[in-house]
Amino acid sequence: MRLRRKAWIGEAIKEYSDLVILLQSGNAYQGRWREILGRDAPLHVELGTGRGTFITDLAALHRSTNFIGMEAVPDVLYNAAQKAQFRELNNLKLLLADVNNILDIFAPGEVNRLYINFCDPWPKRRHAKRRLTHAGFLAKYKVILALGGELFFKTDNIKLFEFSLNQFADMGLSLGNITFDLHNSSYEGNIMTEYEAKFSALGQPIYRCEVRF
Amino acid sequence: MRLRRKAWIGEAIKEYSDLVILLQSGNAYQGRWREILGRDAPLHVELGTGRGTFITDLAALHRSTNFIGMEAVPDVLYNAAQKAQFRELNNLKLLLADVNNILDIFAPGEVNRLYINFCDPWPKRRHAKRRLTHAGFLAKYKVILALGGELFFKTDNIKLFEFSLNQFADMGLSLGNITFDLHNSSYEGNIMTEYEAKFSALGQPIYRCEVRF
Repeated sequence: MRLRRKAWIGEAIKEYSDLVILLQSGNAYQGRWREILGRDAPLHVELGTGRGTFITDLAALHRSTNFIGMEAVPDVLYNAAQKAQFRELNNLKLLLADVNNILDIFAPGEVNRLYINFCDPWPKRRHAKRRLTHAGFLAKYKVILALGGELFFKTDNIKLFEFSLNQFADMGLSLGNITFDLHNSSYEGNIMTEYEAKFSALGQPIYRCEVRF
Repeated sequence: MRLRRKAWIGEAIKEYSDLVILLQSGNAYQGRWREILGRDAPLHVELGTGRGTFITDLAALHRSTNFIGMEAVPDVLYNAAQKAQFRELNNLKLLLADVNNILDIFAPGEVNRLYINFCDPWPKRRHAKRRLTHAGFLAKYKVILALGGELFFKTDNIKLFEFSLNQFADMGLSLGNITFDLHNSSYEGNIMTEYEAKFSALGQPIYRCEVRF
């Protein structure tokens, strides 16, 4: 969800300069993320981190994994930074950047897992290319993911889920743990996003799958 | 759906001896189906043909393909035989047999495509092995299917569809044309079963996918 731009955010977000990286030049950090995070550990990236509930919960649970939350909207990333700061997560960086530029941001094979949670479904057919699970994006993910790299995908939009499964299958990617109702499935250890908590409380089923590249 | 056994069916079905094969010994025809159908053409088999609406419509549309409709219940197979006889389909045989015995019925690589339409979902977990898309069955299909052989699967049961997608994916099979609402999808040329016509008219979405072995 895009919010009205708060004028003071541009300044305020600088308070979090240890945590939040404002990507000036696309490839300044490419291939250096393990160095920046200060440990040689698997790198897991959430595309569209929003207010950061998911990525901060995840990073708190898995202290020996490196996490990056990518988000293009400064206002919501500011909220994520507040959460991360409060929880003293030294295995997480937040990145103000656009997923379209992902090939400039990460080096080939640099990422071990991608998370896409409740991305914009772009329901109109002419906007299909903007969906984060479109083949055009998958081709980019394939480059930045290490061998055996994964994508974990959740959505509450059945049409987007159907579209996504077909895109994954058409690219010959391996699927696993497909569920049409995550909260009534046998899947354990689910971490909810804010959006997910809200909509699943209304009885909306959550669709999820894992994809291996 | 199992019906009460009609006592006269055992005799009546013999009227259709050209069309209906009552499998006495499992492997009497194994590897000989093209010879029996009288042409060297691709062989497509429906598992659980029921009253035969689907397979007779399909066989009428594709006269140069060999079809077999397998069904374990004589009463409903009798209805299928009546339909097939009426339409003078010389590219179709109906087979009174149990899918469990499929490895005795077909030779390795003998079949090019399998159809499973609205099979019994066996909703209880302890009955999962009876579902026709369980890995145990898939392993058998893999034997009888030719290289590049396919399985076309339809169901109105979302839990069965979810289960099936996972079974396909876990076996590393390629998926394609996944739809969560067949009758409102872009898929063309769908042939409906009797069951499908009835339940989709009530607004029940139909799930479908194609699997390549």
